[in-house]
Amino acid sequence: MEKERQALQAWKDRVAKELDSVVAFWLQHSHDREHGGFFTCLGRNGQVYDDLKYVWLQGRQVWMYCRLYRNFERFRRAEILDAAKAGGEFLLRFARVAPPAKKCAFVLTRDGRPMKVQRTIFSECFYTIAMNELWRVTKETRYQNEAVEMMDQIIHWVREDPSGLGRPQLSGTPASESMAVPMMLMNLMDQLSEEDEALTKKYAELSDWCAQRILKHVQRDGKAVLENISDDGKELPGCLGRHQNPGHAIEAGWFLLQYARKKGDTKLRAHIIDKFLLLPFHSGWDSEHGGLFYFQDVDGFCPTQLEWDMKLWWPHSEAMIAFLMGYSDSGDPALLKIFNQVAEYTFHHFHDREFGEWYGYLNREGKVALNIKGGPRVWHPAPPALPTPVPTLLTGCFHVPRCLAMCEQMLGALLHRGSTPASPTHRSSK
Amino acid sequence: MEKERQALQAWKDRVAKELDSVVAFWLQHSHDREHGGFFTCLGRNGQVYDDLKYVWLQGRQVWMYCRLYRNFERFRRAEILDAAKAGGEFLLRFARVAPPAKKCAFVLTRDGRPMKVQRTIFSECFYTIAMNELWRVTKETRYQNEAVEMMDQIIHWVREDPSGLGRPQLSGTPASESMAVPMMLMNLMDQLSEEDEALTKKYAELSDWCAQRILKHVQRDGKAVLENISDDGKELPGCLGRHQNPGHAIEAGWFLLQYARKKGDTKLRAHIIDKFLLLPFHSGWDSEHGGLFYFQDVDGFCPTQLEWDMKLWWPHSEAMIAFLMGYSDSGDPALLKIFNQVAEYTFHHFHDREFGEWYGYLNREGKVALNIKGGPRVWHPAPPALPTPVPTLLTGCFHVPRCLAMCEQMLGALLHRGSTPASPTHRSSK
Repeated sequence: MEKERQALQAWKDRVAKELDSVVAFWLQHSHDREHGGFFTCLGRNGQVYDDLKYVWLQGRQVWMYCRLYRNFERFRRAEILDAAKAGGEFLLRFARVAPPAKKCAFVLTRDGRPMKVQRTIFSECFYTIAMNELWRVTKETRYQNEAVEMMDQIIHWVREDPSGLGRPQLSGTPASESMAVPMMLMNLMDQLSEEDEALTKKYAELSDWCAQRILKHVQRDGKAVLENISDDGKELPGCLGRHQNPGHAIEAGWFLLQYARKKGDTKLRAHIIDKFLLLPFHSGWDSEHGGLFYFQDVDGFCPTQLEWDMKLWWPHSEAMIAFLMGYSDSGDPALLKIFNQVAEYTFHHFHDREFGEWYGYLNREGKVALNIKGGPRVWHPAPPALPTPVPTLLTGCFHVPRCLAMCEQMLGALLHRGSTPASPTHRSSK
Repeated sequence: MEKERQALQAWKDRVAKELDSVVAFWLQHSHDREHGGFFTCLGRNGQVYDDLKYVWLQGRQVWMYCRLYRNFERFRRAEILDAAKAGGEFLLRFARVAPPAKKCAFVLTRDGRPMKVQRTIFSECFYTIAMNELWRVTKETRYQNEAVEMMDQIIHWVREDPSGLGRPQLSGTPASESMAVPMMLMNLMDQLSEEDEALTKKYAELSDWCAQRILKHVQRDGKAVLENISDDGKELPGCLGRHQNPGHAIEAGWFLLQYARKKGDTKLRAHIIDKFLLLPFHSGWDSEHGGLFYFQDVDGFCPTQLEWDMKLWWPHSEAMIAFLMGYSDSGDPALLKIFNQVAEYTFHHFHDREFGEWYGYLNREGKVALNIKGGPRVWHPAPPALPTPVPTLLTGCFHVPRCLAMCEQMLGALLHRGSTPASPTHRSSK
């Protein structure tokens, strides 16, 4: 017990130190003091190699800064709040392409002119979480109004009428769903509902809908999580249907764990741990070189994406969150063991000892393939039948600090309540 | 002399044998006898792993089959012509999304329903070369009418009004040009003008325009070919402006060599060899592991594309064509030496000894990364400011047989005219 406590304390110290260093990197290199907002195309040493502003990344960094400011005493600093506010004002002024319409640009010039618009909901989603979090730290209601109105628009696009997104309706496009959509909506609801009884109530039905949609991606008699399914919850034909993204399934896992915790549903929790944590981890972990593969084909065909066997930063940061959360909630030491395995691989391979922050892209063997710290990578092209891209292929001030901040908080809570987590009710079958 | 002749003969035999084997692969595995058209998602052994039909690949395969039928005695076989015609009929029936409008789908279901439309000209371009070549082998004028009308539409989109492509006009999008557009147009004109005086005359001004546009991509005082430039021929800011694709520049090189030959312009030829063959070859060749890098940043920043250091099949097939053509036209033995170097690397690394055809995707070290033979890979996302994707990231029955067929013909011509090529007038400076 004491040994486990020491191990948790050691991870907490290591994670907290890493969070300090990562935040320092973004504070030092990413602020655009002339136009507001953030530079997000940063080289290994923080050098700005392009000044385009991706709305996803602007929104995520505003959100991250506010979260840190709100939840960590040591980050409650004026420079963090001021930068978040400057980023928020930049978004308010420039993100929406043709106000009063809600559609946001995907990428803006440094001074805020729109360069590209995606026919999806994701720019708008990151805009929403930024505005809601800004409201939480500043108490200025204009931010919250913006967040709630945009959320209404997003829900309308997803559940009522997607025509405002601008995608053509074609007779050969299957009625299908990427797991990214209900995941993103669930993430938004968690954000907006926090300590807000009225919104919790408003979104209750939607929250259940999202959870049910995500759960339907468990296919093949419970033996696989598939990224894309038909609207009526069946496997789709071809590569599109067989496509798997283990890191994304694991990320969905911790979204769902939070849902199960709110519901107090331990049976659902056990199901989530089996299907969304252990199943993709065991299929996705590279037993030869370590790390999680990026994409897999459920029938073992060679995936058609060039990066399928690469090790990317975010599946690993999401797995750290998911397995530590799974352990915190269930007490199953097998999950803590996997957290250790993933976190050791991650700190060893992704952390840049010289310049700080993490590398984003390693080859299969774990060697650095791209040494950028912030990337302008255009969205990952979706399988052809789905115009919805996987919303996570942009490095920036988001996945890494979110992971470290959440892990630091979870480790703190575990240490606080003693070395034995509450009521072990789930033992994994593997 | 005799030794060089023997070397050319050996390459001719090797290339012809390889062409036979590649054509056999597609004949055996790719024909959809039920719906017409071609399966293009083929695994290493030819197994169909998806039945989607990419219009680019349908058009390219129809074109390739007709070319082989028309130019090679040994391929003048009914099964090749019949398959080309079935592919052509499939395109005529299904490629256009909403006839009489000309816009074509990017991908169709197996039975021809549209799944996705690209907001670019490329599906239409490959449709056009298919129809023109079908007309050449069948003499049926309906194919040629279709080709010429589509060509008019494409020219209108490029030079008059792109609004029919469906891309939004945004204030932050720079007025810019991807080299792919004038290259593609030049390729179409070469196809349509072949032994056609009226069309040669019709497209003469456009042909010069394309050549001038491509030549403007030589930037930095002649020290680099950049993929994207401003509409007025200047370097663009950021990653977009610094982006280089050595294989694509070399491909542009052989398009331009054909243009210079028609013009009888030996000074232009020397310029093309220096700037579009030698410059990208020397910057793009990996001196450590061999092979051509896929992408580079002209200032040496780390490219932001995951595949930047991979070795892809098509830059190598284009380089084989370009250096053999450069040698044929100029007589410079330095170019033959580079042809040898590229061809040896290519035959050694890309050729699949067990199942035939070539691998498409090797990692930097030359190890097979994806073993598929035909790929459903969605277009390569363009840099954000340019909605024009690089039009060449789909494996299929095109680059490899086109390279082998052209090299076989060029080697035959070199051997026919004797071992000393005509009038050496260019010696490379490197």
